[in-house]
Amino acid sequence: MKVIKSSREIREWSRTQQQKGSSIGFVPTMGFLHKGHLSLVQKARALSDKVIVSIFINPTQFAPNEDLDNYPIDLEGDLEKCRAENVDVVFIPHKNEMYSDFHQTYVINQEIGQLLCGQTRPTHFRGVTTIVAKLFNLIDPDFAVFGQKDAQQSIIIKNMVRDLSYRTQIIIEPIVREEDGLAMSSRNKYLSPRQRKNALVLSQCLKFAENEFKRTGRDINNLEKEIKNRIGETPDCKVDYVEFVNEASLTKKFVPGDKVLLALAVFVGSTRLIDNTVLTY
Amino acid sequence: MKVIKSSREIREWSRTQQQKGSSIGFVPTMGFLHKGHLSLVQKARALSDKVIVSIFINPTQFAPNEDLDNYPIDLEGDLEKCRAENVDVVFIPHKNEMYSDFHQTYVINQEIGQLLCGQTRPTHFRGVTTIVAKLFNLIDPDFAVFGQKDAQQSIIIKNMVRDLSYRTQIIIEPIVREEDGLAMSSRNKYLSPRQRKNALVLSQCLKFAENEFKRTGRDINNLEKEIKNRIGETPDCKVDYVEFVNEASLTKKFVPGDKVLLALAVFVGSTRLIDNTVLTY
Repeated sequence: MKVIKSSREIREWSRTQQQKGSSIGFVPTMGFLHKGHLSLVQKARALSDKVIVSIFINPTQFAPNEDLDNYPIDLEGDLEKCRAENVDVVFIPHKNEMYSDFHQTYVINQEIGQLLCGQTRPTHFRGVTTIVAKLFNLIDPDFAVFGQKDAQQSIIIKNMVRDLSYRTQIIIEPIVREEDGLAMSSRNKYLSPRQRKNALVLSQCLKFAENEFKRTGRDINNLEKEIKNRIGETPDCKVDYVEFVNEASLTKKFVPGDKVLLALAVFVGSTRLIDNTVLTY
Repeated sequence: MKVIKSSREIREWSRTQQQKGSSIGFVPTMGFLHKGHLSLVQKARALSDKVIVSIFINPTQFAPNEDLDNYPIDLEGDLEKCRAENVDVVFIPHKNEMYSDFHQTYVINQEIGQLLCGQTRPTHFRGVTTIVAKLFNLIDPDFAVFGQKDAQQSIIIKNMVRDLSYRTQIIIEPIVREEDGLAMSSRNKYLSPRQRKNALVLSQCLKFAENEFKRTGRDINNLEKEIKNRIGETPDCKVDYVEFVNEASLTKKFVPGDKVLLALAVFVGSTRLIDNTVLTY
């Protein structure tokens, strides 16, 4: 397994592989890899001749008050996990390799980038689309694999690929959960044992909504209220948002048969966790 | 010479050429080609194995009150000129081929995109960078050739390539002028004979500034006033802006030896013309 740190080198490696006729699968990450990430790597491995994983804590997707400086790091552990998954290249650029002092060009989503997480984190998706566009321009992957955990990100990236005519096929893999239901996240590390327990309210509310949707149909307004109450009553927990939206448009417009994304963002202590499930209207 | 109208086909053509080891030179245009465009095509021809010219009147770079619906078209003439320059492919996508009804992703320059032309045309460069990014993603050219006439555009595109890690080398070719000095522009077609004559004030002011810069040094403030007066006194003409800026940053900060861009935008009747020259501070 090769570790590459320079943009020039990753581009050259990637082009050389393509000239040999190899397909490239790509998994962009911020490191501190867990089983959720590894399921993406496995998918890329199954689809492609060569697999590149990037590890880059992308500063432009953090706001000044967020956890950029504390974001967990375990480079040795990450490399070991990648090796075990038969990754071909891990790309670990330095910040200066990705952003010059004069950086001023961004890729933005002008519509759904403003909704859900965009309301609390108004510059977050701008950072995500910008770094993913850069990585796509360097690597030109055939496939790029993202997690359904970041549902809004997945939709925004798919829109970016369509709108900017990238050739890369975007693959979305299901959420991977701990045994007790908590969605895997590098940020789970921030939770105290008590918070960790209380954080189960997210997945429990999703389960509850899935059952209610089947049982009573689609009284979204009541369900939304009920879920907000449950979270509000859980110690350490504060609702950021609870939203039922059309999975394609992230709007509140549904017709029967539409996929409904139920997306939650909850502060557990000072840690902001997200989770979601997809229902059928 | 091939005429291609579909995104899928231009991408395939381009990839096939690259797999054969051919380099690709690209000249994006809005058509109604004049000698300025053809100088770009000739440069691309000299640099590359294969040359692609795109002709697309890009709606996102026009504001609602601008000339999108009247923009001059001469497709037959354009194809003839491209044939004469040994162009390999002319890419003429339909609007729906480039923008879906759901288009929501844009490439923006957050700094110098707001200056000069960005003040009168706040969404213009967003449209330019978005379409150029799309075309780069479809064609993946080795070289792309732009005109110094659109000086701010050239700098913004160069920044985009650096900031988003495109591999394309950007080449800027000098302004091509009519015999009497008027910079070539598709929009010159809008001018009445009288306006055409009065429009010479742009190139005359640039000449004047070049001479004054050599003669008296760099009294930018006085020169700016003098040029604004000259334009203001010319019938049919109204200053949009007259600015001396650092060619690299488009700011007003100079140290001796810096390149100074003197950029003009002038309404001649209702036609907005731009022109520029580069001086040494």
